[in-house]
Amino acid sequence: MTIPVRNPRIGLEDYVLRPLSEDELLKQTQRLRMGQVEWNNKGINHRIAALKVWQEQIVAAKEEIIEALTVDTGRYAESVLEFNLLPTTITRWIGWAGAFFNQENEKQSQVPMIRIRQDNVPYSLVSVISPWNFPLLLSIIDTIPALLAGSAVIVKPSEITPRFIKVLQKTIDLTPHLRDVLFYTEGAGHTGSLLVAAGDITCFTGSVATGKRVYQQAASLFKPCFLELGGKDAAIVIEGANTDHAARSILWGSTVNCGHSCLSVERVYVQRDIYTEFLQKIKNEADQIQLAIEDPRKGQIGPVISLQQVNIIDDHLKDAIAKGAKIISGNAACQLIHGGYYCRPTILTDVNHDMKVMTEETFGPIIPIMPFDTVDEGIAMVNDSIFGLSGAVFAATNEAAVKIASKIDAGAISINECALTAIVHDGEKNSFKYSGMGGSRMGPSSLQRFLRKKAYLINENIGPSAWWFHG
Amino acid sequence: MTIPVRNPRIGLEDYVLRPLSEDELLKQTQRLRMGQVEWNNKGINHRIAALKVWQEQIVAAKEEIIEALTVDTGRYAESVLEFNLLPTTITRWIGWAGAFFNQENEKQSQVPMIRIRQDNVPYSLVSVISPWNFPLLLSIIDTIPALLAGSAVIVKPSEITPRFIKVLQKTIDLTPHLRDVLFYTEGAGHTGSLLVAAGDITCFTGSVATGKRVYQQAASLFKPCFLELGGKDAAIVIEGANTDHAARSILWGSTVNCGHSCLSVERVYVQRDIYTEFLQKIKNEADQIQLAIEDPRKGQIGPVISLQQVNIIDDHLKDAIAKGAKIISGNAACQLIHGGYYCRPTILTDVNHDMKVMTEETFGPIIPIMPFDTVDEGIAMVNDSIFGLSGAVFAATNEAAVKIASKIDAGAISINECALTAIVHDGEKNSFKYSGMGGSRMGPSSLQRFLRKKAYLINENIGPSAWWFHG
Repeated sequence: MTIPVRNPRIGLEDYVLRPLSEDELLKQTQRLRMGQVEWNNKGINHRIAALKVWQEQIVAAKEEIIEALTVDTGRYAESVLEFNLLPTTITRWIGWAGAFFNQENEKQSQVPMIRIRQDNVPYSLVSVISPWNFPLLLSIIDTIPALLAGSAVIVKPSEITPRFIKVLQKTIDLTPHLRDVLFYTEGAGHTGSLLVAAGDITCFTGSVATGKRVYQQAASLFKPCFLELGGKDAAIVIEGANTDHAARSILWGSTVNCGHSCLSVERVYVQRDIYTEFLQKIKNEADQIQLAIEDPRKGQIGPVISLQQVNIIDDHLKDAIAKGAKIISGNAACQLIHGGYYCRPTILTDVNHDMKVMTEETFGPIIPIMPFDTVDEGIAMVNDSIFGLSGAVFAATNEAAVKIASKIDAGAISINECALTAIVHDGEKNSFKYSGMGGSRMGPSSLQRFLRKKAYLINENIGPSAWWFHG
Repeated sequence: MTIPVRNPRIGLEDYVLRPLSEDELLKQTQRLRMGQVEWNNKGINHRIAALKVWQEQIVAAKEEIIEALTVDTGRYAESVLEFNLLPTTITRWIGWAGAFFNQENEKQSQVPMIRIRQDNVPYSLVSVISPWNFPLLLSIIDTIPALLAGSAVIVKPSEITPRFIKVLQKTIDLTPHLRDVLFYTEGAGHTGSLLVAAGDITCFTGSVATGKRVYQQAASLFKPCFLELGGKDAAIVIEGANTDHAARSILWGSTVNCGHSCLSVERVYVQRDIYTEFLQKIKNEADQIQLAIEDPRKGQIGPVISLQQVNIIDDHLKDAIAKGAKIISGNAACQLIHGGYYCRPTILTDVNHDMKVMTEETFGPIIPIMPFDTVDEGIAMVNDSIFGLSGAVFAATNEAAVKIASKIDAGAISINECALTAIVHDGEKNSFKYSGMGGSRMGPSSLQRFLRKKAYLINENIGPSAWWFHG
């Protein structure tokens, strides 16, 4: 069975996926599980050395990887950004994992004559299922800590952006030891569900709808899973904030990567006194944005990557306009240009929480803006959501903003900036509400998601045991 | 609707459960959720102070609580043990939680000009569903860290041992602040499933079969859960071990609390050269055990608490004997005496892994013993199980035993002792395989199961932002 893949810039199917059969996949997972034994036994320094070699292979393949990603996603700047994050992510994780595995692992128990030695047992095989919006970055974000934890990993990136897979797999094939424990495979939903069944634990990044299905499949198989799902991140701007900065920052946060980011700003709330001023400023900035139509290296916003997303964006815009929303910058729908669909930064006013654009994930460069009167009102609007991924607060001072942020029901709040989780990976955060399930994927502790803790409880007083049969 | 409850010593139904209606339960959970806001906001010292008052109330009610537990379970010594662990558990957790919440919570990010402030957001309402084998201890083991984390907690102990609930709830009612956030409620499976739906997160301790259902219900509601389920713990005795000590220790580990413990020893593997000697020693010890029939304060083994468990124990014995097992101490079935069912320590030889008694959880004082030749053979037998809760290794030295233990696929291994997780609570351990799901319930980190991590990513350079729109 093959799956044709559409090119987002030209709208033609110019690539074909060939998912492995169930048998072929089983052979791969058996191979990986066998490789994992030595990978784990040889210790952290062995794994670090292998990842350093991979890093060199990746850097050597830089142009080829960026080229494949650029075709996959129709954009250049973000592909460079994604690529550049790969070697730095490996370096960061090497530091954290080295420190973790060199920790003291023995202590005296509070119970007399008992010593406790702690061990960490990695899952044998981790399945990673990753989405199309940052195809490379989101395929490695859980993979690298899992590998350093001592697990083998099988990765299935999205079927919408698969062209980088073979290029990246070539760098893996060139890396001794790593190639025994890491494999990237092509496929769509069926392959994903085979991966949930094949691995000991699944890391899924994607939509809430699919995430719910992954969770239910994992539960039916009695396996753990980690889910990183959608968001409807709000930015809130309080009187006294630097509105020039807030307008530029929110414009970026809403439109970068064509709004194809779980942590993009999808709702903006502005205090009434500065509402008109803020609108004018963000409109001025938005009107100047260039679409990257002719040349993916020029302009700030590339094509909408997924055809399904075109329909969702158009549907949210149509729904909002039908319910009274006004467009002050941008258009009422995505535009078809040379076969690709493009969407200008689109600022909506007169919006409310009866509209999909304020409640469901749009995943496009749409900026609906609502005024509010009191800060408490604003916070209530921010929290009126089934999502709780992240958010942003702009206020006169960082302290004032943090105070407001403390009342926002989400895992990470950027203070006087937007979407900082895109670049700040050393803060620990959970995804609240429907935005996710399981431990933090950010920060050093996220390594431990792939490790089971094991304790040796050592009796230092072998001999007649007096403490039992007290009855 | 009411549910009659059987007394395990006399076999008569002498207590009646009245589970709350769905509406009454909803009122309770709303009350707890309201109380939780202040409970969390007032900080850790407020919560510690409330728990210290509760501790005093508990100690004042000591006799009444032990008496209720003794009727619930038909045994006295273990009820005293359970009671005594309650105040010490509170003290231990007060220390750990105080230290946790006083940690440094701010750091500079690796990203220039970004500071990270970490926060911890407790789940509003934790549901605890606990089993009948240690009714008090297993109802508080997750409850106390959850309370200190800042959550409200609703607890449903097993419908088989409910008599202590009202007595304990009285001590809660006498404790200001705590009574706003903690409630013990009676009920059976239906109430349990209402609790899974009512809480933000569920801690379930019980059978694998029910645990699977809890996981699937939680997944269908997109809620997290922690499961602590069954075990089939093995003890392995290697040539060179102190066989006097091993025999006494394993006898205790298999029979304490009538074998009604997830971490009781349910399988014993002994190296061939010391097999006969070990058998003789454990038989000599087992033959001397007294059943606590006339007076629960005398004798070491009380009645089988649950009628359903009587059937399971008898079924496993019957199955083993039909397949060739021999009894060298004890009886071929539980005995009915004055209305209660009792089971002597029952040592089985000539057993194998085709028998239920070697593969399914028996939860009775049954000691099936198998010889093995090489250490690798013995380890393979130990790991041939769907369970991975804990285990025990006896060898000539602790170092030799730890080396063997490192190959055992379970979360906690007692070294030259049995079942130490019963008394050692400061080692971190996961439950492997079908024995559980989710973070360690032991050790200081288990507090964090009830906290979601939240990060404030603080921009220290408000103003013209140069790092975006790099395209």
